[in-house]
Amino acid sequence: MPGLSSPILVIDSGLGGLTAVAALRKTLPHEDLLYFGDTARVPYGSKTGKTITSFVRQIIQCMQPHNPKHILIACNTATALALPALRNEFLNISISGVIDPGAKAAAAAAGNKQYPVIAVIATEATIRSRAYEHALARRRQHARVCSIATPLLAPIVEEGRSEDDPLVRLALEQYLRPVLKRGIDVLLLGCTHYPLIKRAIQSITGPKVQVIDSADQCAEDVARRLLTVGMLRGDSGKTGSLRCFVTDESPRFSRLASRFLGFTVATPTWVAPETLYRQETDITVMSA
Amino acid sequence: MPGLSSPILVIDSGLGGLTAVAALRKTLPHEDLLYFGDTARVPYGSKTGKTITSFVRQIIQCMQPHNPKHILIACNTATALALPALRNEFLNISISGVIDPGAKAAAAAAGNKQYPVIAVIATEATIRSRAYEHALARRRQHARVCSIATPLLAPIVEEGRSEDDPLVRLALEQYLRPVLKRGIDVLLLGCTHYPLIKRAIQSITGPKVQVIDSADQCAEDVARRLLTVGMLRGDSGKTGSLRCFVTDESPRFSRLASRFLGFTVATPTWVAPETLYRQETDITVMSA
Repeated sequence: MPGLSSPILVIDSGLGGLTAVAALRKTLPHEDLLYFGDTARVPYGSKTGKTITSFVRQIIQCMQPHNPKHILIACNTATALALPALRNEFLNISISGVIDPGAKAAAAAAGNKQYPVIAVIATEATIRSRAYEHALARRRQHARVCSIATPLLAPIVEEGRSEDDPLVRLALEQYLRPVLKRGIDVLLLGCTHYPLIKRAIQSITGPKVQVIDSADQCAEDVARRLLTVGMLRGDSGKTGSLRCFVTDESPRFSRLASRFLGFTVATPTWVAPETLYRQETDITVMSA
Repeated sequence: MPGLSSPILVIDSGLGGLTAVAALRKTLPHEDLLYFGDTARVPYGSKTGKTITSFVRQIIQCMQPHNPKHILIACNTATALALPALRNEFLNISISGVIDPGAKAAAAAAGNKQYPVIAVIATEATIRSRAYEHALARRRQHARVCSIATPLLAPIVEEGRSEDDPLVRLALEQYLRPVLKRGIDVLLLGCTHYPLIKRAIQSITGPKVQVIDSADQCAEDVARRLLTVGMLRGDSGKTGSLRCFVTDESPRFSRLASRFLGFTVATPTWVAPETLYRQETDITVMSA
């Protein structure tokens, strides 16, 4: 059983989830963090729920020996397509995602407006799942939600383009122009990559649109969950540790990690993708 | 042992390799074709040689029961990073790739020029491997090769953007402007996705630059190899079959497949990624 000093595990398809790690570090500076980036099979955003659920299940099983006290699925696509099923499978593990906190932040940003218009930008798979629409409908029944798949934005961020790059601006204009014409109150960034071009996004939407990302709200959500079960670590006087695991030792890691995280991080531990499958096979055999 | 009527197996990271299938169908209309697209783990272009070699090894092992008489690795990244190692492992199987045929086509296009300048555009991993530079140096010792990583182009094609889209033109201008300023004779398209925006590419380079893709040359290369070993099927009076296998049943398949292939194709067979790993485990056990 995990205890007070057990780590929080953050799972992502690649490195974008490190933006959630940065927020957790700020909100919960004394907690030990583990980060698992599935860099061999990234991205998830163009794949099916069946495949993504299987990938995340393997990661959870592989990381169970680390005894995490909470698991944050920091990837929007994985939250949308895999979280509900995995919560039902791993009943003894506390698992949360990024969609509900994001919807909460967006609903709050819409303020007192009776019929707010909230636009969501995300990967194809996240949009297709309608997870944000459902999460927003639960909080703001009268909100109108416009969902826009923006598959190029994550590759654009991963390429390391500057926010002033004309191509970044053109892509944003093309994706956002139709909804901006109709008028929106809030724009929710439904992918962990997008906060890195938030300034460019805000310059396209203009200052009247509230551009919201879920990172801070997510960290607060994790803190609240830990507090509820008495698992929140007090001020130990020292910053918690951070250890990263990846399934492909990409040369992109150090460059992207420091961009997403805002600070540099030790070389990650490599987990061979076949290890994940063997784990799954073992467990299937054990439970058979 | 494979025989005259055994199929040709085409392996790709995703669906781009269907451009090679289209060329094979044209050059070798009577051959039966199998296509394996690793859509659960696509793309390969940002990943390491170790990971990609392991992925392609699993696919070859998984497809061995189909007894292919030849395997074409239609993905440039997989050819660059995995083909040499896999040829040494699977000594009894005839395997070829797309880099050498591409380099041959580019070298031929450079004509009699003594010091031709050949530019290559490809994924990050292909460019990092320097496979095209080496292949071109073997054929045209005095050619100057300019290699340009163009990581956004495959996602742009997969999104289904038209060649007249301003973003397609801007991306191409940004990537190609520096080499076009210096002057090039040949531009080699080092990724199976790029032929789909060849017209846009040619309009940026101008008519004096020869824009070359490897699909036709590749199909001729496969034909030559089969002819050499007496495995080329004669005119049977009917078109060979085509059967597709994918690791993720992406909703993108039908849309993208007909774009890459130029004709519609039957629903693909789904191969669960974990099957690939079990296969590898079994074989490891068997050979231990």
